[in-house]
Amino acid sequence: MRALLLEEDRLYLAEREMPEPGAGEVLVRNLACGICGSDLHLRRHLGELRRAAAEMGAVPEALTGAVALGHEYVGEIVRAGPGVTATTGARVCSPPFLLREAGVVPLGASPLAPGGFGDYMLLSASLLVAVPDTLDTELAALTEPAGIAVHAVAKAAMPENAVPLVIGCGPIGLAMIGVLAAGGVSPIIASDLQPARGAHARAMGAETVTHGKGENGTAAAARLAPGRPLVVFDCTGARGVLRRIMLDVPAGTRIVVVGIAPGEDSFPAVVAIAKELSVQFVIHSTPAEFAAAMGIIAAAPDRWRSMIGARISLDDAEAAFDAMESGASHGKTLVLHGAIAS
Amino acid sequence: MRALLLEEDRLYLAEREMPEPGAGEVLVRNLACGICGSDLHLRRHLGELRRAAAEMGAVPEALTGAVALGHEYVGEIVRAGPGVTATTGARVCSPPFLLREAGVVPLGASPLAPGGFGDYMLLSASLLVAVPDTLDTELAALTEPAGIAVHAVAKAAMPENAVPLVIGCGPIGLAMIGVLAAGGVSPIIASDLQPARGAHARAMGAETVTHGKGENGTAAAARLAPGRPLVVFDCTGARGVLRRIMLDVPAGTRIVVVGIAPGEDSFPAVVAIAKELSVQFVIHSTPAEFAAAMGIIAAAPDRWRSMIGARISLDDAEAAFDAMESGASHGKTLVLHGAIAS
Repeated sequence: MRALLLEEDRLYLAEREMPEPGAGEVLVRNLACGICGSDLHLRRHLGELRRAAAEMGAVPEALTGAVALGHEYVGEIVRAGPGVTATTGARVCSPPFLLREAGVVPLGASPLAPGGFGDYMLLSASLLVAVPDTLDTELAALTEPAGIAVHAVAKAAMPENAVPLVIGCGPIGLAMIGVLAAGGVSPIIASDLQPARGAHARAMGAETVTHGKGENGTAAAARLAPGRPLVVFDCTGARGVLRRIMLDVPAGTRIVVVGIAPGEDSFPAVVAIAKELSVQFVIHSTPAEFAAAMGIIAAAPDRWRSMIGARISLDDAEAAFDAMESGASHGKTLVLHGAIAS
Repeated sequence: MRALLLEEDRLYLAEREMPEPGAGEVLVRNLACGICGSDLHLRRHLGELRRAAAEMGAVPEALTGAVALGHEYVGEIVRAGPGVTATTGARVCSPPFLLREAGVVPLGASPLAPGGFGDYMLLSASLLVAVPDTLDTELAALTEPAGIAVHAVAKAAMPENAVPLVIGCGPIGLAMIGVLAAGGVSPIIASDLQPARGAHARAMGAETVTHGKGENGTAAAARLAPGRPLVVFDCTGARGVLRRIMLDVPAGTRIVVVGIAPGEDSFPAVVAIAKELSVQFVIHSTPAEFAAAMGIIAAAPDRWRSMIGARISLDDAEAAFDAMESGASHGKTLVLHGAIAS
């Protein structure tokens, strides 16, 4: 089988042995897998992320060797491992973790198990979420980022009547907007330096999208929803954004950082304190939030389809990484393992 | 009347005109006033703090001229302004704000009104909190920092069964320990680089105090309260501490930053995100929390008396600032305007 591997900052397709499902696992044939901003970060900062993981006590074997990428996958069940009953051919997703006795393996970010950009992978049966027959495979592939957004909203503990400002309209920002819209939150203010991303953000449910020049997001929120508390979702994954947000927002604002930024970041301590700001960092979702996300997508398929920017084959993955990194692509790029829809 | 003034970084005693209470105000003769870490910060970073205040839309007149210091005051009422009924001689405290039509004046941090280190000051009648006859004046002077601690505990929204780790055993850290102990929280873990501060921390209610060498606070919490969620109160007011905390603590930890650190600070973004940490910055208290703090002190006078490190006269204030800045003094330093207790 083929797999998309990352070693240092080198991305390449390689032949790998077909994996064998262990106890509690299923083997799935991958159908679709989204490229995530954290895949791009991994390509550039694998070493740093591994050092951070080591500092947090991660499994040592996970810290060397080529990483099999892809954690926003949909697959169909091929075979069940010992002790598992599963329907062959059933479409499934799961949170990107393999639960093994030796420790949890982060799927798509580890050399210890295949990822969603390979032809096949292993999933933990206890984490499987069945894709409803009515839900397209490519929409089901949005479940993982939508789950992060569900989790971010839960962690935000938004005050009643709060107005959300979503900064950064890449895939995570778009998923944030979609989940907030599904919850009936209005208005949703969005912001991105690239005007080309505005159409995606509006299609997902943003009332207005600011672009750096002229009115900024904080000012737009104050104009459209005067007096209401602000909750900012930083979905840029970029350094320096938190600092700018802290300077812009009113006192008491809650900031939820959803993107992964590499390295050290800085913030104006005296401003954060004088304004009594709060910052919640977010990276994953719970299995329940992951499952809830699929329900949210299934309830508004047209909205979520608007989030998809490109459908590519595995052969074009490296080029797609480059396009995303340069900012040339918008919306979610999906790797489709079978026929490519137009 | 005399006042302790700050201009640029020069601290000096000066004669000032006796202030006249306006509508809704009372004139008080100051009895005692604590020196706060933020007074020290003001001496070194007034310009920077003023720039931050300007950025947040503070009253422009507050941004130039000599600042009258002192915001942890107890006074006795001398005279009431128009429309105010007040008992002459009654002892009172208040949150450090003067509510004026032109805007809120931060007492002890502004050139617009006298502070607690002068002989007399003006207070807003609507914010007055009467000192009970049974409560010593010097203990009542601890109300303001204790109010910050009450506020910090409220903002911490500690999960049930959480264990607090108080880092930095200066006056704010000691007040945090005292308020947590009053709430029945146990065990309370404390940490300070200076072993000499351990006795104060234990007297306030800390179970154990770590000192940098050997076991750190996070490890002590894990040993004394295994499996319980950790809430860290950073009461150091020092740069670089948040970064160290983020590296040390387990995933999901809530960090409350109570001290004022000047300038920019940095943090390891990828660690904050991977651990889903949350950070709440805290600077003041609500009037209700301020009043509650006085009740907490009155209920355990011996505990709170142990927090007092030195009792000085206004003439010795600058030397006391220097001693605090060098780390040579421990506990709260109180300026007593009348006779100095031994």
